[in-house]
Amino acid sequence: MTKIAMLSTGEEVLHGDIVDTNAAWMSAEFYQHGFALAKRSTVGDQMGALVEELLMLSFNYDVVIVNGGLGPTTDDMSAAAAASAADQKLVLFPDWLQRMESMFAARGAKMPDSNLKQAMLPESSQIVDNPVGTACGFKLKINDATFYFTPGVPSEFKKMVKDQILPDLSRSYPEISAFECSRLYTFGLSESGISDILDQLKLPEGYELGYRSYLPFIEVKLFGPKSGLEVRVKLLQMVHKLLEGNVVSVDEPMVEHLGHLLSEKHKTLSVSEVSTKGALSAWLQSDENLENCFGHSWVMAESKGSEIDKSDPLAATLALAGATREKCATELALVTGKLEDKTFSVALSTLAGEWGQVFEFHRSYNREDSRTVIKTVAADMLRRHLENKPMFGQFTSLKRIKELFIPNSVL
Amino acid sequence: MTKIAMLSTGEEVLHGDIVDTNAAWMSAEFYQHGFALAKRSTVGDQMGALVEELLMLSFNYDVVIVNGGLGPTTDDMSAAAAASAADQKLVLFPDWLQRMESMFAARGAKMPDSNLKQAMLPESSQIVDNPVGTACGFKLKINDATFYFTPGVPSEFKKMVKDQILPDLSRSYPEISAFECSRLYTFGLSESGISDILDQLKLPEGYELGYRSYLPFIEVKLFGPKSGLEVRVKLLQMVHKLLEGNVVSVDEPMVEHLGHLLSEKHKTLSVSEVSTKGALSAWLQSDENLENCFGHSWVMAESKGSEIDKSDPLAATLALAGATREKCATELALVTGKLEDKTFSVALSTLAGEWGQVFEFHRSYNREDSRTVIKTVAADMLRRHLENKPMFGQFTSLKRIKELFIPNSVL
Repeated sequence: MTKIAMLSTGEEVLHGDIVDTNAAWMSAEFYQHGFALAKRSTVGDQMGALVEELLMLSFNYDVVIVNGGLGPTTDDMSAAAAASAADQKLVLFPDWLQRMESMFAARGAKMPDSNLKQAMLPESSQIVDNPVGTACGFKLKINDATFYFTPGVPSEFKKMVKDQILPDLSRSYPEISAFECSRLYTFGLSESGISDILDQLKLPEGYELGYRSYLPFIEVKLFGPKSGLEVRVKLLQMVHKLLEGNVVSVDEPMVEHLGHLLSEKHKTLSVSEVSTKGALSAWLQSDENLENCFGHSWVMAESKGSEIDKSDPLAATLALAGATREKCATELALVTGKLEDKTFSVALSTLAGEWGQVFEFHRSYNREDSRTVIKTVAADMLRRHLENKPMFGQFTSLKRIKELFIPNSVL
Repeated sequence: MTKIAMLSTGEEVLHGDIVDTNAAWMSAEFYQHGFALAKRSTVGDQMGALVEELLMLSFNYDVVIVNGGLGPTTDDMSAAAAASAADQKLVLFPDWLQRMESMFAARGAKMPDSNLKQAMLPESSQIVDNPVGTACGFKLKINDATFYFTPGVPSEFKKMVKDQILPDLSRSYPEISAFECSRLYTFGLSESGISDILDQLKLPEGYELGYRSYLPFIEVKLFGPKSGLEVRVKLLQMVHKLLEGNVVSVDEPMVEHLGHLLSEKHKTLSVSEVSTKGALSAWLQSDENLENCFGHSWVMAESKGSEIDKSDPLAATLALAGATREKCATELALVTGKLEDKTFSVALSTLAGEWGQVFEFHRSYNREDSRTVIKTVAADMLRRHLENKPMFGQFTSLKRIKELFIPNSVL
């Protein structure tokens, strides 16, 4: 088996000033292409530590991706460390020098002398192109391992990995075949709840389930061989069926799915928010399709919202939904009512009438998280309506206290 | 010098399913206490790879923090790997067994047999208490290095690091003194711009500047010895003066600072948003003080917003600010106008009159980022007004096209 490692460099990563998202991104991308990492490590910008780590990796791994340390300043020392570890000289690569000079010339500037350093590479290096920056990547054998040195800037790094390193690896290791991954986005189940349900599935050889959990969603990922589209689709349907009511979208985030539904059905939407403070409107309108279907929205101060009706929060929320729909002249109006203690209400007004429900949180969330959950419960009503699904779902972390449908008597 | 390393374990970290925020958090926390990490590494849940890495670290480092792999399931194997690397037996620690049994009893449940594994530790281990979970930490010598094994659940991990591991290290290495860190939050400068300005400062020995950059803010961090409060405050004032107009808050995020200002001055605020789609209201009301000073807000569809006045977007935005303040009967009203091409307007209505400005983006942002910048420019007007600062700031990534103040003639 090919053993693959990644080395991240830089004080700012090592000391936690920045989270190493390059590493997480590359690990997932490599995994999906069949190149699972065996190890990741991080060292700072010290020549001794860098050379030591490069040597150690060169003896124990077949392929090593090194990220960062290719910039023009003196604390960028990956090329020098690579030369030292490979026992080679740093030499000028005139092709890259020319590339940098023309990059600067295109912006009407002269290349600063400090950039010269970025064209100095270990002598047996092969350049790995960076079409979007001055830090060129390079490929180099150190002992028996193949090293790829890559720039730290995320956009440059990602482009290089996708366009050049992964294709190069696939040529070098043709026997390794890529996975394909399908994603189901679920809301309202716990990770252990989902895995208990899906444990009953016997997956065929080569197929695997993975979970990624972040409030408010848990993503269920189904990995399978690229060639087995038909089987993967069938398995996906089985997973979908088992999680049915809690699947909010497939292979696209919930908000994109809502945007597609709404624009395909030519519906318009307005929103009134009490407990979610604008978060629902902002989230929905992060999708362009949804934004185009949007009327106005209102964000009401909690105290004022309560003046409508203190005794029956559900009635108040339903009334607000109807009023919002009428005032904005949209087909649909979505509303989040007051949050009081651990209780909140949501409602959807449609041509056919108003749906409303009251929930109680099973657990305590902080301010931000409770708004995230409430806005998702509201959006889930919109999804159920647009998909012609039963309107009242089940959510592990919430207890439904009341539910109500008031048909529009005018019809 | 004490050499410190951290080892993260787990397939889900190694393959990028989750970003290793524990590592970034601990690195920063350790750095601040004077214990800078020399290396971080990540391996998956394979016994061979784990033991190999533990041994390698034990020969090269003085202190190693191992994170993850202490759960009850079979893929959690940190204790077994530690025993193997230390050449010791796993033995039952009856004290911890009892603790787990009483944890379960408190919830009225019987401890499942699978949890027994969590009380099996290498025989010379010292237990490191975990008051909030069943995975106990432990301290163990392997070769010449001191290892701390910690649970992967972030809340349990952080509590253990703060309450036990850092104090234990401070006792073991009394010569290492903690830094203290002050933070300035800036908006509208580039990181290279800030470092060019601050390079002229000659910091005394033991003081250091760090930057952390994420849209929309760049945090400037000043590290210094815990004992030198007076010097640090003086340096902080010098840094503040150099960055003056772009410092939005000190030692607290901008939105908290605005919340304090608004509630101290007993002002109330309403908001109308066109380009920011609810993001401004949601952000401001993420702070509790601000929420309490909030009237209503309106989020207007872009097309409708433009009906007010197509020819002069600044006039339209100023009018909207005045109307919002009047309608909501608040002392202040903050408004974001339309975004058209790369041009947007913001306005603040006060008792004294209306301030408005029009900007053009110097660079292209995606939808989310452009809303983030616009809401921050708007909030910056509010800050300047509440701090009695000049109302029109300078921002590297924005070009101001127009500015206007219309005094309230009624006064």
